[in-house]
Amino acid sequence: MLEVKTPQEVLALIEKEFRPLGQTEAVPLSRALGRVLAEPITAQEYVPDFDRSTVDGYACRAADTFGCSDAIPAILNLAGEVLMGQGADFVLSRDSCVYVPTGGAIPKGADSVVMIEYTEDYGDGTVGIMKPGAPGMNLIFRGDDVFPGKEILPAGRVLTAQDIGALAAVGRTSVPVSRRVKVGVISTGDELVAPDRTPRPGQVRDVNSSLLAAMLEAFGTEVVSYGIVVDDEALLRRKMQTAAQACDAVILSGGSSVGVKDAACRIIESMGELLLHGIAVKPGKPTIMGKAGNKPLIGLPGHPVAACFVAQLFVLPLLGRLMGRKQKDFTVSAELTESLGANHGREQINACHLRREDGKLLATPVRSKSGLITQLSGADGYFIISRDCEGLPRGAQVQVYLY
Amino acid sequence: MLEVKTPQEVLALIEKEFRPLGQTEAVPLSRALGRVLAEPITAQEYVPDFDRSTVDGYACRAADTFGCSDAIPAILNLAGEVLMGQGADFVLSRDSCVYVPTGGAIPKGADSVVMIEYTEDYGDGTVGIMKPGAPGMNLIFRGDDVFPGKEILPAGRVLTAQDIGALAAVGRTSVPVSRRVKVGVISTGDELVAPDRTPRPGQVRDVNSSLLAAMLEAFGTEVVSYGIVVDDEALLRRKMQTAAQACDAVILSGGSSVGVKDAACRIIESMGELLLHGIAVKPGKPTIMGKAGNKPLIGLPGHPVAACFVAQLFVLPLLGRLMGRKQKDFTVSAELTESLGANHGREQINACHLRREDGKLLATPVRSKSGLITQLSGADGYFIISRDCEGLPRGAQVQVYLY
Repeated sequence: MLEVKTPQEVLALIEKEFRPLGQTEAVPLSRALGRVLAEPITAQEYVPDFDRSTVDGYACRAADTFGCSDAIPAILNLAGEVLMGQGADFVLSRDSCVYVPTGGAIPKGADSVVMIEYTEDYGDGTVGIMKPGAPGMNLIFRGDDVFPGKEILPAGRVLTAQDIGALAAVGRTSVPVSRRVKVGVISTGDELVAPDRTPRPGQVRDVNSSLLAAMLEAFGTEVVSYGIVVDDEALLRRKMQTAAQACDAVILSGGSSVGVKDAACRIIESMGELLLHGIAVKPGKPTIMGKAGNKPLIGLPGHPVAACFVAQLFVLPLLGRLMGRKQKDFTVSAELTESLGANHGREQINACHLRREDGKLLATPVRSKSGLITQLSGADGYFIISRDCEGLPRGAQVQVYLY
Repeated sequence: MLEVKTPQEVLALIEKEFRPLGQTEAVPLSRALGRVLAEPITAQEYVPDFDRSTVDGYACRAADTFGCSDAIPAILNLAGEVLMGQGADFVLSRDSCVYVPTGGAIPKGADSVVMIEYTEDYGDGTVGIMKPGAPGMNLIFRGDDVFPGKEILPAGRVLTAQDIGALAAVGRTSVPVSRRVKVGVISTGDELVAPDRTPRPGQVRDVNSSLLAAMLEAFGTEVVSYGIVVDDEALLRRKMQTAAQACDAVILSGGSSVGVKDAACRIIESMGELLLHGIAVKPGKPTIMGKAGNKPLIGLPGHPVAACFVAQLFVLPLLGRLMGRKQKDFTVSAELTESLGANHGREQINACHLRREDGKLLATPVRSKSGLITQLSGADGYFIISRDCEGLPRGAQVQVYLY
């Protein structure tokens, strides 16, 4: 008989029992946002590939301007102008300068750029410099930013818009990313009807199919919906097998009755191996997890709030593991607006609303009793109360994971 | 002549000069994730629509069990079983109970559910109750969660997966959302080449087209890319006019030279009105903003890091205004790992890397001089140093906006 595991044990189990799929595909840069980088990106070239001005001004040898001032400008010969997009393939002679726009190339020999504000073009082929240059002033040297062999992005990174910009800068227009994980989602329960139907007495709408599909999609996986299956073990077994054949992972939710839970355990065992039966977390205890080869087979609680939290805390990390995703999770610190009891001997997860008041971030917990919609809709995130904590007073700081 | 404005003045200007497009479309629930809700969602019905058990157990009248214990159970007549998905359309008589699974309907007359753990089915048509019920125990009453007229989600909300779940629960399978704003993106600069080309001397790859497209896409707008235009005022004018006709907003980036900046100002003025010339923020000062009717026409700095920050701080809020988006922005608090100078009389924006160490979140600033790729790639977010601050010491707390 498998014992109920703590959240930490479950995360360790995921690391131990599942390995990254290791399947890479190349996508165009314009479709790489949010994808998981499959291998580190290393620069192949120098960026910039030439010494470059960061201001509009005159490139010169700094030594030729030492000691100059408003009163006694350094007079340099104007050797011309560098045009944007053109090289500056000549050597600047002593006591000379050349006009360079922001971003323009700097000729050999020049080691500084004096901003145009501190100069005067006398119109006779000479320019007065009122402020001395210094070596390296107002320019970026070739390779200052990136040079061949420098790692730009590590494997496992979930690509941000800023990363996309960096990839464009080094010319990586085809990006190696992990193949999207394909997840089959099944809802079970005789009481469930599709969201577009009006429930008859004793029936409720299937929330988990829509909720999980949206969570999984936002996480960057592909979702295959297998709809609602009535509580029938043979039917459920066939559906699970079909889903496991077509997908990389299968998530079954619902079956709140003891009989269905047992059936789900038997089905998972017959398909592979049962790894977990129960997590010491509230809500979310009746969670089961198994595998067929490297394919996760997961049974989530039927209650949408519990399904949501368990998916967030355990299913997404598990799918992230399959995708080789190495993402940091950051929390925001907020002050609890009311006291909250927690005396369960298991971690308690609480949704909350956030608002800023007088420069402080305040978290108002959503009360459990308020039901599923009140728990889900409009909440900004959730926080966790540790298992050994008997409750939190008003004013306590909590770490909120944002939705 | 327009003066340089502070960031706060720019945000106020955006509120004053632009109004929401006010155009709504209906999308299926499965495609509503991340969209901006166009009107508040109000429940039309009760959820749950029937009194519902939250445990497996026996529904009964609490009064019939008062005073019972392990030693002296209350003996109730078993009046049958409620099946999942079926109503319980009968009235429970006194001294009777009925088996109800988790989520099952509760018959009239019953006011509590005793968990199965505290009961014994004697097999003779009676059940022993070892723990007294209490009115309301282990059940959710009809409408406890939601009732007709209750607001579930406010207009302007960017829909999360959890919101999608709540909408499924109340049967809103078609969701009224703001039409996506269509944004035209133009890069200008004689030095720019497409990212898939190898720059010749003096040339660099166009980073802004890819960067801005990814940022705008992540923000939920539709992007139309107009590619790279050389520094030619007539050409640029025609391109801007074409984009303004097809799109709700036009963003021009680049043109770092003074001549091109002036040209962009002239073009915007000729198309409508110039509202802003320069923002007191570093990097990002050479930003211009105008409008043709309610259509924003924006000129961003050519440097990708500056373009990125200005887009984040001003362009996204502006586009959010057009979409009626009312989104809270939360920051994470982190400790600076090194001191940072800032003596500019304008707000300074700094990218940073975050890492957790000994339970503390640490922010390592990316140094300005490191160039564009180093600034963008792999950073986790950015923080702002206020204009009156001369710098921050190591160990200072900063508020980081996450990418």
